[in-house]
Amino acid sequence: MIKVAIIGVGTVGSSVVNILEKNKDIISARAGVEIVPAIGVVKNLNKKREVNIPLTTNVDEVLQREDIDIVVELMGGVEEPYKIVKKALQNKKAVVTANKALLAYHRYELQELAGDLPLFYEASVAGGIPIIGALRNGLSANHIESIVGILNGTSNFMLTKMIKENATYEKALKEAQELGYAEADPTFDVGGFDAAHKLLILASIAYGIDAKPEDILIEGISSITKTDVEFAKEFDYEIKLLGIAKKNGDGVELRVHPTMVKNSHPIAKVDGVMNAVSVVGDCVGQTMFYGPGAGGDATASAVIADIIEIARGNKGPMLGYKKGLESGLRLLKPSQIESKYYLKLKVVDKPGVLASIAKILSDFNISISSVLQKDSRVANRVRLLFTTHKTQEAKIIKAMANIEELESVGKGNISMMRIEE
Amino acid sequence: MIKVAIIGVGTVGSSVVNILEKNKDIISARAGVEIVPAIGVVKNLNKKREVNIPLTTNVDEVLQREDIDIVVELMGGVEEPYKIVKKALQNKKAVVTANKALLAYHRYELQELAGDLPLFYEASVAGGIPIIGALRNGLSANHIESIVGILNGTSNFMLTKMIKENATYEKALKEAQELGYAEADPTFDVGGFDAAHKLLILASIAYGIDAKPEDILIEGISSITKTDVEFAKEFDYEIKLLGIAKKNGDGVELRVHPTMVKNSHPIAKVDGVMNAVSVVGDCVGQTMFYGPGAGGDATASAVIADIIEIARGNKGPMLGYKKGLESGLRLLKPSQIESKYYLKLKVVDKPGVLASIAKILSDFNISISSVLQKDSRVANRVRLLFTTHKTQEAKIIKAMANIEELESVGKGNISMMRIEE
Repeated sequence: MIKVAIIGVGTVGSSVVNILEKNKDIISARAGVEIVPAIGVVKNLNKKREVNIPLTTNVDEVLQREDIDIVVELMGGVEEPYKIVKKALQNKKAVVTANKALLAYHRYELQELAGDLPLFYEASVAGGIPIIGALRNGLSANHIESIVGILNGTSNFMLTKMIKENATYEKALKEAQELGYAEADPTFDVGGFDAAHKLLILASIAYGIDAKPEDILIEGISSITKTDVEFAKEFDYEIKLLGIAKKNGDGVELRVHPTMVKNSHPIAKVDGVMNAVSVVGDCVGQTMFYGPGAGGDATASAVIADIIEIARGNKGPMLGYKKGLESGLRLLKPSQIESKYYLKLKVVDKPGVLASIAKILSDFNISISSVLQKDSRVANRVRLLFTTHKTQEAKIIKAMANIEELESVGKGNISMMRIEE
Repeated sequence: MIKVAIIGVGTVGSSVVNILEKNKDIISARAGVEIVPAIGVVKNLNKKREVNIPLTTNVDEVLQREDIDIVVELMGGVEEPYKIVKKALQNKKAVVTANKALLAYHRYELQELAGDLPLFYEASVAGGIPIIGALRNGLSANHIESIVGILNGTSNFMLTKMIKENATYEKALKEAQELGYAEADPTFDVGGFDAAHKLLILASIAYGIDAKPEDILIEGISSITKTDVEFAKEFDYEIKLLGIAKKNGDGVELRVHPTMVKNSHPIAKVDGVMNAVSVVGDCVGQTMFYGPGAGGDATASAVIADIIEIARGNKGPMLGYKKGLESGLRLLKPSQIESKYYLKLKVVDKPGVLASIAKILSDFNISISSVLQKDSRVANRVRLLFTTHKTQEAKIIKAMANIEELESVGKGNISMMRIEE
């Protein structure tokens, strides 16, 4: 028998406890041993919870219990769970966590601390999709060329509403909040931070890159407008909030931003609250993993899979490698990103404007792929939309600054979105 | 250092050897140890191969070598590799195989023989997609409700041609053969047998069901006509050759057949030679795994992932469980399958025909979902197409037999396809 302590008995914790009970036939057959949720640690004993295990507020006592084999950390936050996981490892407990924020900040210290103890975290990225296992085990023969993921269900739900049903950003957000997909303060989801935490975990497994959320480009979806949506439809793109990790020479790009994704990309078809991660490896080619990225039971599915792996005696290195991985690779600065770009301008409608903009792009060696001038006027101005061939972020930023200085354009009348094909 | 013997140095074997060399930096970092392809066993030493390892024809000698840790079986066939894998296990070698036919017939004996020795087979189903790992590990907390897979790239390529480009079956086959996707005798692929082998492996992991190809329903794609394709387009279906494993009460349906798949199903969007497997679990909900199902390098990606897992010391039970799994479940007979159906008839165009057909369906308690009568005449007859609500295969078969006996229908003028939504 393997005894599990659940630290944090909220939505996911309750699902873990209840599924361990409901599916115990299949779980013990697969684990080869009975798995028992022995104790739950909570902050408030008076809160009603639909679980049938003893509860306590004393985490230290639980971490010292000799009969507890696995500590499952589901409390959220960063520094408090970090202390608890450290203590659990010091007390020789195996650990399972679903905590992406904890791992976004402390995964390397934790890998070091864990040593030969299993520290598994399948549920930390993309909920029920076994993407950690796929990347750490199933694709381990590959140099990973790119990871492109829809890692935040809230944003994807809103973007689907905006594109498929022409909802405004505000209306989409309201609906997401009403359905319980978005928090009252949605910043963590719509601002790209949640996706960034998950991306950093995937990038560590793929590239051994040590980076924190502060080190990478993170842009949210709040600035997407109807014009962007119309352009996307007209040119066969979807707009997705993507987490992207991409090898570029001896560097790695890590970035989260709204993206124009060509319809032919398998990830473009992923709608609503679903998550998906496309991984391109040098041997395997393109793969994609699709499923629910959140929800109590789906996340618990991943947590329990980790518990079963530990029960089976599988250790595996936490991040998937025992010594330095791709040690020549370094994190590229945002300015070093290479991408195709979509440029959106509001310009004064007079002869020569297009020519002067094209001239600036050409000066920066940026090659234009398509142009669309819409005959719709806003305050005496017309919309001018471009897409470019692949170029460097630094060049686009400088070119945009120069274009903004044109009298016929002016401050705040040019913006861009990156394109993925 | 871990030494590997490669039994069978064809397309996949050569890729395994070459990727172990080309990607050895990342492979040894992930495995924690250097992995060396030490020897290849071939039938014909004179055949030119692009690999840089010693070759021999003496398999027995290789299986007895004390310095060989892992035997990789890539020779194909059933009984000969079965003998070799048995001998390897008896000699305490870990085994990796990509051989679906071997496993379709001998997986339970092999699990028994392997005992605590690792016997891994990620490459046997869906090539480079890590679907075995997903099902055996990542989704192990779930009772699996269904597995629906595009498991044969050749058939999917042909069906894509037939639907997207209106190619005939013959033209699609010819193109597949010219591109090297189909054999001169394509029966194994287009007849559904290849998909059936893979389905049996997946069903063993999900349900512990012991069945052989002979025990299950297998239909190929050769009878699909332009009428079916036109109907599919008109009613928002794709036609896919699917391998389906589905829990139905205390039974399991296992079947391979061409299927009308509703466009909204994620698997409907998988085109060309790509494979995909959709798995629905009781906790996780719907997931899908997508990627290349064949090809030397993609398959080698999975073979090497298994080698790395063995090097890491992971054992895991071969089929994912240490004792009986869902032991109450039994294999349902083809007649017990439950599905929605598409019925295609050629009927004499006279009053009362539709009524008499509808009467027979109603007598068998089969409820009609949609009807389409096309105004196109073939030899004085008209096309009549139905879809039904869910019913049992036995009822449809009997109803079809009765309908065939109507004077206005007649032998050979009714056929059906199953529907998946």
